[in-house]
Amino acid sequence: MKFDAWYTEPQTENLSLSTKIKDILYVGKSEYQEIQVIDTYEYGKTLILENTYQTTERDEFIYHELISHPALFTHGNPKNVLVIGGGDGGTVREVLKHETVENVDFVELDGMVIEACKKYMPTLSCKIDDEKVNVIITDGIKYVADVAKTEKRYDVIIVDCPDPVGPAAGLFEMEFYNNLYKCLTDDGVMVQQTESPLLHESLISKIKGHLQDAGFGFIRPMVCSIPTYPSGFWSFTLASKQNSPLETETAEIVAKMEKYGMETKYYDEEVHKGVFLAIPKFLK
Amino acid sequence: MKFDAWYTEPQTENLSLSTKIKDILYVGKSEYQEIQVIDTYEYGKTLILENTYQTTERDEFIYHELISHPALFTHGNPKNVLVIGGGDGGTVREVLKHETVENVDFVELDGMVIEACKKYMPTLSCKIDDEKVNVIITDGIKYVADVAKTEKRYDVIIVDCPDPVGPAAGLFEMEFYNNLYKCLTDDGVMVQQTESPLLHESLISKIKGHLQDAGFGFIRPMVCSIPTYPSGFWSFTLASKQNSPLETETAEIVAKMEKYGMETKYYDEEVHKGVFLAIPKFLK
Repeated sequence: MKFDAWYTEPQTENLSLSTKIKDILYVGKSEYQEIQVIDTYEYGKTLILENTYQTTERDEFIYHELISHPALFTHGNPKNVLVIGGGDGGTVREVLKHETVENVDFVELDGMVIEACKKYMPTLSCKIDDEKVNVIITDGIKYVADVAKTEKRYDVIIVDCPDPVGPAAGLFEMEFYNNLYKCLTDDGVMVQQTESPLLHESLISKIKGHLQDAGFGFIRPMVCSIPTYPSGFWSFTLASKQNSPLETETAEIVAKMEKYGMETKYYDEEVHKGVFLAIPKFLK
Repeated sequence: MKFDAWYTEPQTENLSLSTKIKDILYVGKSEYQEIQVIDTYEYGKTLILENTYQTTERDEFIYHELISHPALFTHGNPKNVLVIGGGDGGTVREVLKHETVENVDFVELDGMVIEACKKYMPTLSCKIDDEKVNVIITDGIKYVADVAKTEKRYDVIIVDCPDPVGPAAGLFEMEFYNNLYKCLTDDGVMVQQTESPLLHESLISKIKGHLQDAGFGFIRPMVCSIPTYPSGFWSFTLASKQNSPLETETAEIVAKMEKYGMETKYYDEEVHKGVFLAIPKFLK
């Protein structure tokens, strides 16, 4: 084939990743950002925000399963879940695999991202219109500040945030973590994507400090590979008021996954503990 | 700065990774391959063979610690170790952190890689001239076939091999694994880098079948991030005749690491078990 088109993301000043593209499916500009959906040969359909790879059909299961299931099974009986960010819908889809979940408040700043993903990435966005999902188009930072002043509490909060620049910077600040703590029940669990251990080690360390100061008892990162993120080496951080994922009963996870008919490609009862043990020593 | 030079590796037909370079330190051509050492802004000095990233100063600890310590501590008392490939010397450096090790036979096909790394990547090659190390410039496939016919046996064999193309293809074939099994003591352990779970799933599955057919009792992959390898999502496979890493005494690892004064950046006693649990479900 003669047609040889590539999309290149300058991931840092000194690093760039290029994927060969089949097609450009969508180009839009919202109040907040530029939005593209492209179709790539290696990773399938890919969401790009502000010239940054967000998620791809081929590898999204890694990110979405790890940001969801360890936190939800660490809680054990989640009913009310808050998802902040993740307009593609992949996290919401995973959360709904837990039968105990009765309500998902899905707070996304940019409604145009949801609309683009509903149209072009249906394998991710397929559950956004589920009756248990309450889509709220607003700023997650402001949302948790408002909820913290009420009696409303969540069992699990998932912060599926972009990089800490622009409107998302506040999702990595002390005030936000204090409000998250207040918005959680007494046995609440939160989890957040926390960038690359190789490129953003000091940020991960800062987040851990904030979570400790906010009052969380158990705080641990997990690491995994996200092929299209800078360095490909990525982290999440889970913080829990009471429960430790290392103490979740393995048999309980197995039984629930079977009961729910839960299909996963990455997560299982061994991964649940393994990801909290296989943390590189330099991150501890 | 106006000077803006980049090195780009076409990692698959549809994917390429580029790093901004400070300098080209070495360009050579051996009987087997083209060899370059470049200095990059993001990852420091980087060894390139046949236009393929091999190892970088910044992230090499991930690869070299994981290919070494889980296998050596799973054995428990390794004295004679065989390292096949890994001309940069990073694996040999890690193996020598184990005080029990009396002899390392270091079999590398291409002496020019060793010479280039001795000169330009001393943080990796620093232990190649250690008195416990016996450098043997020959084909690893032929070497294990010859040793298998003798009485010589190794406690641990580490296959630090390149991609399965050209002269390295035989390092992924049944005959090689049969010979590895013969070259190991009754409580022997082997480990090999086994490519990307995302891009080479069927190869990993084929290797597992070969290791089972060769007679190994415990066989499990580990996964990690290697930022400069295709997809960044990488695997090793460990195969043991008797011992399981999941049964290594944690206190024993802690005590030995302290006794040896062993400094690591990735590996510790939690990682030892965690990496064999945190295996993506689709790989099992």
